[in-house]
Amino acid sequence: MENLKAFALICSLTPSPEPSSSELMANHILAELSKNGVTTSSARVVDHNVAPGVKTDMGNGDEWPGLRQRILDADIFLLSTPIWMGHPSSLAQRVVERLDADLAETNDQDQPIMYNKVAVVSVVGNEDGAHKTVADMMQALNDIGFTVPAQGGTYWVGEAMQAVDFKDLDEVPENIAHSISMLARNAAHVAKSLKVASYPPE
Amino acid sequence: MENLKAFALICSLTPSPEPSSSELMANHILAELSKNGVTTSSARVVDHNVAPGVKTDMGNGDEWPGLRQRILDADIFLLSTPIWMGHPSSLAQRVVERLDADLAETNDQDQPIMYNKVAVVSVVGNEDGAHKTVADMMQALNDIGFTVPAQGGTYWVGEAMQAVDFKDLDEVPENIAHSISMLARNAAHVAKSLKVASYPPE
Amino acid sequence: MENLKAFALICSLTPSPEPSSSELMANHILAELSKNGVTTSSARVVDHNVAPGVKTDMGNGDEWPGLRQRILDADIFLLSTPIWMGHPSSLAQRVVERLDADLAETNDQDQPIMYNKVAVVSVVGNEDGAHKTVADMMQALNDIGFTVPAQGGTYWVGEAMQAVDFKDLDEVPENIAHSISMLARNAAHVAKSLKVASYPPE
Amino acid sequence: MENLKAFALICSLTPSPEPSSSELMANHILAELSKNGVTTSSARVVDHNVAPGVKTDMGNGDEWPGLRQRILDADIFLLSTPIWMGHPSSLAQRVVERLDADLAETNDQDQPIMYNKVAVVSVVGNEDGAHKTVADMMQALNDIGFTVPAQGGTYWVGEAMQAVDFKDLDEVPENIAHSISMLARNAAHVAKSLKVASYPPE
Repeated sequence: MENLKAFALICSLTPSPEPSSSELMANHILAELSKNGVTTSSARVVDHNVAPGVKTDMGNGDEWPGLRQRILDADIFLLSTPIWMGHPSSLAQRVVERLDADLAETNDQDQPIMYNKVAVVSVVGNEDGAHKTVADMMQALNDIGFTVPAQGGTYWVGEAMQAVDFKDLDEVPENIAHSISMLARNAAHVAKSLKVASYPPE
Repeated sequence: MENLKAFALICSLTPSPEPSSSELMANHILAELSKNGVTTSSARVVDHNVAPGVKTDMGNGDEWPGLRQRILDADIFLLSTPIWMGHPSSLAQRVVERLDADLAETNDQDQPIMYNKVAVVSVVGNEDGAHKTVADMMQALNDIGFTVPAQGGTYWVGEAMQAVDFKDLDEVPENIAHSISMLARNAAHVAKSLKVASYPPE
Repeated sequence: MENLKAFALICSLTPSPEPSSSELMANHILAELSKNGVTTSSARVVDHNVAPGVKTDMGNGDEWPGLRQRILDADIFLLSTPIWMGHPSSLAQRVVERLDADLAETNDQDQPIMYNKVAVVSVVGNEDGAHKTVADMMQALNDIGFTVPAQGGTYWVGEAMQAVDFKDLDEVPENIAHSISMLARNAAHVAKSLKVASYPPE
Repeated sequence: MENLKAFALICSLTPSPEPSSSELMANHILAELSKNGVTTSSARVVDHNVAPGVKTDMGNGDEWPGLRQRILDADIFLLSTPIWMGHPSSLAQRVVERLDADLAETNDQDQPIMYNKVAVVSVVGNEDGAHKTVADMMQALNDIGFTVPAQGGTYWVGEAMQAVDFKDLDEVPENIAHSISMLARNAAHVAKSLKVASYPPE
């Protein structure tokens, strides 16, 4: 079997090359996916001109079609977002808005085009909001057709009302590292199963 | 003007007299409300037989009517809940389910009966889930007719994937104490305003 | 291969034998699962004494252990809940609170005990709240270790601020019926894959 | 007393002059506010270059400062958003991200600068997601310092999995019209109270 491919969209509000906690979290997950034999790549949404709208291509220099193609080419899609005001970033929401169009696109089995792919979600923030942000993104991605492996969300946040960033930590806390490792192993397992046997048509 | 009255429902899963972090948080808030001249009292939902259902009285020993009367007698309602699986406790949800009936009950101005009261929300957990839990409860209480004062939610949670309880802390962290003090002052202010001038009828 | 088994917990606030919209929705899904060769059964949570708490057995007549065993015996777990105040019912939240204990229980591969099972969610209400209720339950069940198949949530709600029940409809609307059929087919597909090849241990 | 002022930010993904359901909903609310003696104005976020970020001014042509000034000049802030994938639009989330900076800005009483203002939320969608969208936005705005009047959220959505827009309706359904009228009356009432007696300083 060909190598599995993973693609991560990082939904930080901060453009490259500034450091980003959600990129760092994505990199940890992609590194674990590599250990499971997965070929990985990523992009920061904010570095691209992703237009507001709900079509696959909004025209006028819209760079979503390029990012969307990288999701279509991948077996595993990682959405990595910071938390702002307790919610996924505006760029994470932009991503799921753009994926909405893919409910109407179909593969050669007449299934939604994102079927037979795995989605996982990672979240970082100074404090609080991770479970809800995972829930919002997982529901949206699952609705579009992605499969969610066991414990397919991971996160780090600090204590309530604190201001430390994930990128400021000396090391990844042990519980988080363990969660990342499980998530990657589980994502690769389900992606492989879906490659061996894809969802049956109607 | 007569003293304002506050009533807190504590939505811990643990019956009295076992210590409860959500009760401790409620007590801190009630103490601050007292400093603002408010008369306070509280109850733990789990100590009462609150039946599932959406009527004001489900009969068969349902103890909701007594708790509901204490909300009706108060000017400020505090809902204090722990976080489980990222959500308000089943007892907090039970409380808002029972309050649903009060959308159909009206005061002598033909307004929903919970109008002209203030609601505030407090949340504690080992880790993560506070903003979402505040959002869920605030929306539900506001929908029923309660007014939400500025910064009407407060919370404590530990770092991601940790297991320390609020009741295990040596002291209330400074940011949390500041937030509690503002919430109490703001709740008393709005409750007083609504007593001076209640919502106009249609 | 032995038949797959599905078990549904219905989180209506209404005890049997009163009709329940969330039971009706569950029955439609179980019927579709049967067509996919799955053996099915169900229970209404409100018919059982499920104690508040976060242990596998709270004692004193707690009937959760019996329901939990039926989840353990199943390959597919369906949680079917009504919406109250925009949220999963207090009984749905009670179910995920009780499942919280199973994060610490492990199988013979030292994995969380609910691994290698599929979870799907169905939601009904007079109006509004389905996506959020799916999100809350899906995130909780996935966190516990369940795998979520493509489009693993389905729902019916009426127009805003209306009062018709799912059980009052003359027939299941075509879009909903299509969604139910896909959900059942996808759930059976993933459950079979996990039976053929379970998640690898660490 | 000088007239109260209301300002609405419309978070449609569609630029002017295309019709927008969330603008139409906002216009209905602003019309009701006018009947309550409030001077009103509005803007569509998508018509402006609002940069990603969490500072009051991100520079490089960022048009947020102008919109922010209009919120600062108002007594009542209406956030009107469509639902996409069950959530507030990316532009609604962008607005609360930009308001995050105002937690650190203070008035001459050393309070967060958005204190003593009222926030209300309106939501439209083809189907489902309104309560959750109200909850997300209400919690965020309240956290920033806005006060939420009784029943401060309103919405319209169609039946599950349908595709009719609010702007396609022949008329505003009676329940929605009633809710809009209460919301406007309550918002004006609380805004007036806060003008007569603002939140006390520490």
